Amino acid sequence: MHIHPQLLQDCHALGHFEICHVLLHRNAIVPWFILVPATDQIDLLDLPAETRTTVMQEGEAISRYLKSKLDYPKVNFAALGNVVPQLHIHIIGRKPGDDCWPAPVWGNLNGAAEYKPAELDAMQRVLVQEFGMQLND
Amino acid sequence: MHIHPQLLQDCHALGHFEICHVLLHRNAIVPWFILVPATDQIDLLDLPAETRTTVMQEGEAISRYLKSKLDYPKVNFAALGNVVPQLHIHIIGRKPGDDCWPAPVWGNLNGAAEYKPAELDAMQRVLVQEFGMQLND
Repeated sequence: MHIHPQLLQDCHALGHFEICHVLLHRNAIVPWFILVPATDQIDLLDLPAETRTTVMQEGEAISRYLKSKLDYPKVNFAALGNVVPQLHIHIIGRKPGDDCWPAPVWGNLNGAAEYKPAELDAMQRVLVQEFGMQLND
Repeated sequence: MHIHPQLLQDCHALGHFEICHVLLHRNAIVPWFILVPATDQIDLLDLPAETRTTVMQEGEAISRYLKSKLDYPKVNFAALGNVVPQLHIHIIGRKPGDDCWPAPVWGNLNGAAEYKPAELDAMQRVLVQEFGMQLND
């Protein structure tokens, strides 16, 4: 599946579910996942109902990971796509006092941090073992 | 159903679907709907699957209205809730050259405009007649 080069530049590719590729924004200042469904539609609400239901289930898996494993009380969910036209869905762990709370992340993150390779490996392992993600070939 | 006072202050209450109240942001510079589901959950991805499916169908009706009746090519979809904790879903018609394109609307709208009562009446009528919305008692 083709993924827009801007998304690949901004993110680590962690794996995939049935429909969505699972990307993780390189800026570790907040845990910011981006799901990219295999579709030509550009808007979430234009997806066929069955596809959208599966996409939302895959998003729910990421949200449960953020809440149960990373202890984030709040998850922001958004499909915008004004800059990168390929449909992609932001799922972001948020908490009071984080880098730009309560503002949305877009354009408002001040800090920056990088994931260490061991951190990425650990996240991948948990997502595969407990949340149904599959590794990419 | 209780709706958070900040939402009622910011929006016109147009009607409701089966699960969601339909609000319209008072700033008419972009067509900005806010759906408020009848639920105590605060995050979209925590809704029971059946409820979430219906909420997404109701959002799809608003999106179809924005695209087919108001000629917006793009719809932004987001459930954030960092400021107002009650679950509410933003569904916003967007197009290149609009007030803050391509930025997200939150914190980025420069202009302001008001809906005229006749405009609100016309929107309500179309949403009821063609998109399944019901008027509030």
